[in-house]
Amino acid sequence: MDDIRTVACVGIGTIGGGWAAYFLARGYRVRAWDPAPDAAERVRALIAAAWPALTQLGLAEGADPENISVHSDLAEALDGVQFVQENAPEVLEMKRRLLAEIDAAAPPEAIIASSTSGYSMTEMALEAEHPERLVVGHPFNPPYLIPLVEVVGGERTAPEAVEWASQWYEHIGKSVITMDREVPGFIANRLQEALWREALHMIANGEATVDQIDRSIVDGPGLRWPAQGPMLTFHLAGGPGGMAHMLDHFGPSLKSPWTRLEAPELTPELRDSVVAGCDDEADGRTVADLVAERDQAIIAIRKVMQHLGGSTA
Amino acid sequence: MDDIRTVACVGIGTIGGGWAAYFLARGYRVRAWDPAPDAAERVRALIAAAWPALTQLGLAEGADPENISVHSDLAEALDGVQFVQENAPEVLEMKRRLLAEIDAAAPPEAIIASSTSGYSMTEMALEAEHPERLVVGHPFNPPYLIPLVEVVGGERTAPEAVEWASQWYEHIGKSVITMDREVPGFIANRLQEALWREALHMIANGEATVDQIDRSIVDGPGLRWPAQGPMLTFHLAGGPGGMAHMLDHFGPSLKSPWTRLEAPELTPELRDSVVAGCDDEADGRTVADLVAERDQAIIAIRKVMQHLGGSTA
Repeated sequence: MDDIRTVACVGIGTIGGGWAAYFLARGYRVRAWDPAPDAAERVRALIAAAWPALTQLGLAEGADPENISVHSDLAEALDGVQFVQENAPEVLEMKRRLLAEIDAAAPPEAIIASSTSGYSMTEMALEAEHPERLVVGHPFNPPYLIPLVEVVGGERTAPEAVEWASQWYEHIGKSVITMDREVPGFIANRLQEALWREALHMIANGEATVDQIDRSIVDGPGLRWPAQGPMLTFHLAGGPGGMAHMLDHFGPSLKSPWTRLEAPELTPELRDSVVAGCDDEADGRTVADLVAERDQAIIAIRKVMQHLGGSTA
Repeated sequence: MDDIRTVACVGIGTIGGGWAAYFLARGYRVRAWDPAPDAAERVRALIAAAWPALTQLGLAEGADPENISVHSDLAEALDGVQFVQENAPEVLEMKRRLLAEIDAAAPPEAIIASSTSGYSMTEMALEAEHPERLVVGHPFNPPYLIPLVEVVGGERTAPEAVEWASQWYEHIGKSVITMDREVPGFIANRLQEALWREALHMIANGEATVDQIDRSIVDGPGLRWPAQGPMLTFHLAGGPGGMAHMLDHFGPSLKSPWTRLEAPELTPELRDSVVAGCDDEADGRTVADLVAERDQAIIAIRKVMQHLGGSTA
């Protein structure tokens, strides 16, 4: 992996351009392809806008925003690259055809990852000759700042390709979740989509305004989520007894009509696996330890947001 | 409001004790009541644990963690107080009876707020003689650090009491959302509950582990939410065209099976009100302005989390 020097970005809109900026900041040479006539101009503007942020987070040795070439011929763009990140619009037919074309033109040893946020590789790889090297590597916007990448293969992807892609993204500084099965929307999108749909229902019914929804998150639970996520958050809501106490005592309120999403049945198996998962994640830290960590994080985040002028309180 | 010096906390568990710590940090004298025999001891431990955090965020002049008295008699605890925050367990019958008792014993001019996270004041105020002064003032855990308070009255609450409570919470430094109608779970809880339910479904079906769910938020969308909330986040996902482009182009994917929550019908009215709401919230800031603000926030939050050791990337 240390020998990788050149990667390709196929499609350089908001996501593909964000990936290009990230690869450049990590010191790679980027070869890009996009059918838009003004693609080169737009990606350079995007990289220029992202570069100060990337500089603040720390550039790799030799990182250079000019180290990108934009090609109008796909095969030319893929010439000699050691990894390909595909970022076409979310249109299944287009992704399917494009991945087959990339597969046909890319060097045989290169792994090809798709930024798709919604399609499974099983359905996208149908026309490709070597589906074993096609994986999903789903980033979050902006890819140059948000660390998360969700990695999952399709039915015909080689397990080694999934493993390689996971290691590769970690190698370049990403936070990787490797999924062992294809779930529509992967993990993070399912979660944020549930929240988004409930928000749209509330707006549709006049129960909340756009501004109230954003403020309820920004000044509320959103301050906890960069620190501990939704599961550990509720682990702490249970007091010293943690998630076990939380589920045993507040489990019944799971049936309250609090969202339009029907609650799952809180079976003993689900209860136990949630409790065990929290214990694993806490990794020896008591609830009091976690509360202290959370408080330090919230204070720091609030100070940051106050400093940036983004908080009302 | 500047004349208020003494407030009451009825129920001093995690939430009530957190409120007590906050009131003390803002320089108020707190009179507390709780039926637990070790309540005084526990609330002092909670205040001691919260005080360093409150000190970091800045104490009001004269703030003193010792400025609390814990009483075993409710009427004694309410003697001379100018505001009451009720924090009993989420049991409707208990809340109903306790609010009636508080109402009977508290000075007639004091507004009485409930920390309930789930009940409406209409159903909780049934036994009270003066329901006009009973409001919901719903905080988030921990109440001494999370600024959000959702304020809403019941059918028999005087509009002046809702208005007074909203101003009072703002006066003491809270971020207040005043709702004009009773919605089960208010706003933020509906949103986080949608996410929580989807997470439980995923765990129940073996689609994700507890740790993967937390990491998908902590290293993913959770990094955006303290800065801009879910609505502005999607406003930016639309590129320069903002929410209008987002809804017009990605609206159909709202029907994808991405969560178990059924999507609302994207009517022209809903589309327009979401777009208008984003424009209001952006308040003249272009998408490029908002992208720059978001990036600065994410960088700052990531640096904070890296410094605290809470990030894997």
